[in-house]
Amino acid sequence: MAQEDLGIFKKEHRKTASLESLMSLVKIDLAQVNALILERLQSPVKLIAEIAGYLIKSGGKRLRPVLTLASAQLFNYQGNKAIGLAACVEFIHTATLLHDDVVDDSILRRGHASANQIWGNQASVLVGDFLFSRAFELMVEQESLAALKVLSKASSTISQGEVLQLLHINDLTMTVEKYLEIVHAKTATLFEAATRIGPIIAQKSYEDEKKLAEFGRDLGIAFQLVDDVLDYTAEEALLGKAIGDDFREGKITLPVIYAYQMGDQSEKSFWHKTMVNLEQDKKDFNQAIILLKKYQAFEKTLSLAEQYIQKAKQTLTTFPISPIREALLETCTYVMSRHS
Amino acid sequence: MAQEDLGIFKKEHRKTASLESLMSLVKIDLAQVNALILERLQSPVKLIAEIAGYLIKSGGKRLRPVLTLASAQLFNYQGNKAIGLAACVEFIHTATLLHDDVVDDSILRRGHASANQIWGNQASVLVGDFLFSRAFELMVEQESLAALKVLSKASSTISQGEVLQLLHINDLTMTVEKYLEIVHAKTATLFEAATRIGPIIAQKSYEDEKKLAEFGRDLGIAFQLVDDVLDYTAEEALLGKAIGDDFREGKITLPVIYAYQMGDQSEKSFWHKTMVNLEQDKKDFNQAIILLKKYQAFEKTLSLAEQYIQKAKQTLTTFPISPIREALLETCTYVMSRHS
Repeated sequence: MAQEDLGIFKKEHRKTASLESLMSLVKIDLAQVNALILERLQSPVKLIAEIAGYLIKSGGKRLRPVLTLASAQLFNYQGNKAIGLAACVEFIHTATLLHDDVVDDSILRRGHASANQIWGNQASVLVGDFLFSRAFELMVEQESLAALKVLSKASSTISQGEVLQLLHINDLTMTVEKYLEIVHAKTATLFEAATRIGPIIAQKSYEDEKKLAEFGRDLGIAFQLVDDVLDYTAEEALLGKAIGDDFREGKITLPVIYAYQMGDQSEKSFWHKTMVNLEQDKKDFNQAIILLKKYQAFEKTLSLAEQYIQKAKQTLTTFPISPIREALLETCTYVMSRHS
Repeated sequence: MAQEDLGIFKKEHRKTASLESLMSLVKIDLAQVNALILERLQSPVKLIAEIAGYLIKSGGKRLRPVLTLASAQLFNYQGNKAIGLAACVEFIHTATLLHDDVVDDSILRRGHASANQIWGNQASVLVGDFLFSRAFELMVEQESLAALKVLSKASSTISQGEVLQLLHINDLTMTVEKYLEIVHAKTATLFEAATRIGPIIAQKSYEDEKKLAEFGRDLGIAFQLVDDVLDYTAEEALLGKAIGDDFREGKITLPVIYAYQMGDQSEKSFWHKTMVNLEQDKKDFNQAIILLKKYQAFEKTLSLAEQYIQKAKQTLTTFPISPIREALLETCTYVMSRHS
């Protein structure tokens, strides 16, 4: 089921917003980040370079390290710490994905077979550990204790968020607040750390640090909420991962929480059967979509995401106009309009 | 099969060596380390504190953090960084154990059901990540970039060693050199980092750092080689984990490498059937012991361990006599004589 069919993503967003301006402004730095990532993937143990390389190269948009580079640029940072710290952010992200796929027993990741499918869970766990360690080595080399504090704290918050998510994986009665707490911890924390690094290494005020942290957090929460909707509505080829994963795994996300809360007894039973007991037949995914649409669960989720995006934009507009600020504002719009 | 039956551990070792002197010299600091560990296990996510607490409290001897405290004492270090860094060493160790048990699918750990048996692999992977992150948070708080460099490097070496071990898990043709490379990376590296921290935080010479690193590494390698023998010969109640684990999992350790190298064709087939194909019946473990004894595989392993211990002792004796130096020398003897 494509987004067009649902008509829930605003047309003006689809037409205009892209990551192009942002990408072109950080292009030179990003090339250095990519080179550093490839260099630090190396290990005398070839399997490590193979697995880590497979994941890192199959790529994604490098949104998190790009945000680090952009936040450094916003404060006119001229030093050389941004490159290493951006690479470090991507390593943490990739390590988290590897362990996530083990925990979720995923089959696809970014449109390719997931690492655990190819090399097994054992290697995925250990190579994830390697990437975490490499991230910390890279951090330490930058010799910024303040950045180290933010990133090590972020890493521990993320793992706590992951456990919290595991505990609530098929908890239909989860509140919206609890769900947002999980999203904040497991997804938005790395965005928050990524954008906070700019003012830190540029040695700006604590006030600026706080603003950029808020900006990253709001953007990250919106990003995850849009992801939750896309997992039901995107075209598989665009999303780059299996559509309906959350449903099949019984992973309760915000659209389902809304539909469950508003559902009648027989609908509640449907959610219970499919997402808690994981008794699913072929028609159930379509039935889920029907119920989610009945209660405007996608619209509500996207409308909440839009609130976070508006807040992120407001925070940004407290800084003087500049090409990088405008590109970050467009990034906010892009997050709301993305197809993948 | 008890050690006494095999008669391979020297009697004078059994009688005299213990960790008592060492433990009594670091007692006050160790109490602080334990308090700090308990404090930092806490998380708003209760399951994390539960799993991490289960592992940390079921405890072991805290040998690695004790070595950090002892190495600080050897250089008369008076500051407060040793406590935090010792706790950090124990967190890294515990995280590694958690992920190890997932990778090995272990049933017992330190005489108790392993965490993955009780809470499942998913939670074990994520709580391991939490402990790694907590370790880095603790490190960063000590604000010693030199210690951070050593510990983050150690962490990445350990994970590479773990992957290397996984790649060779049922490789009977592994050389002794390759095996020692794995042992160095996955076990001895943390000992090496633990003992190196003393001269680092006491701001001693690079020469002293190198000596303590060598001491820790040699002790760590000996420790693992003795472990390899104990896995075949210890009494289960003393060892605190299931005897014969390595055999059942097809994990090739030094005694088997020796016996395989010297075995005739039918013996090589036996090792292949049991450790590569994992076709094992009840009598095979005893048959393995018979072959290992036939080629003095335990004696040879312990004799190699003894060489590392002698080297560790020699390194120590380049420092002036002191109670902590004598206690560390006794620790070397203890490692050779331990029953568990």
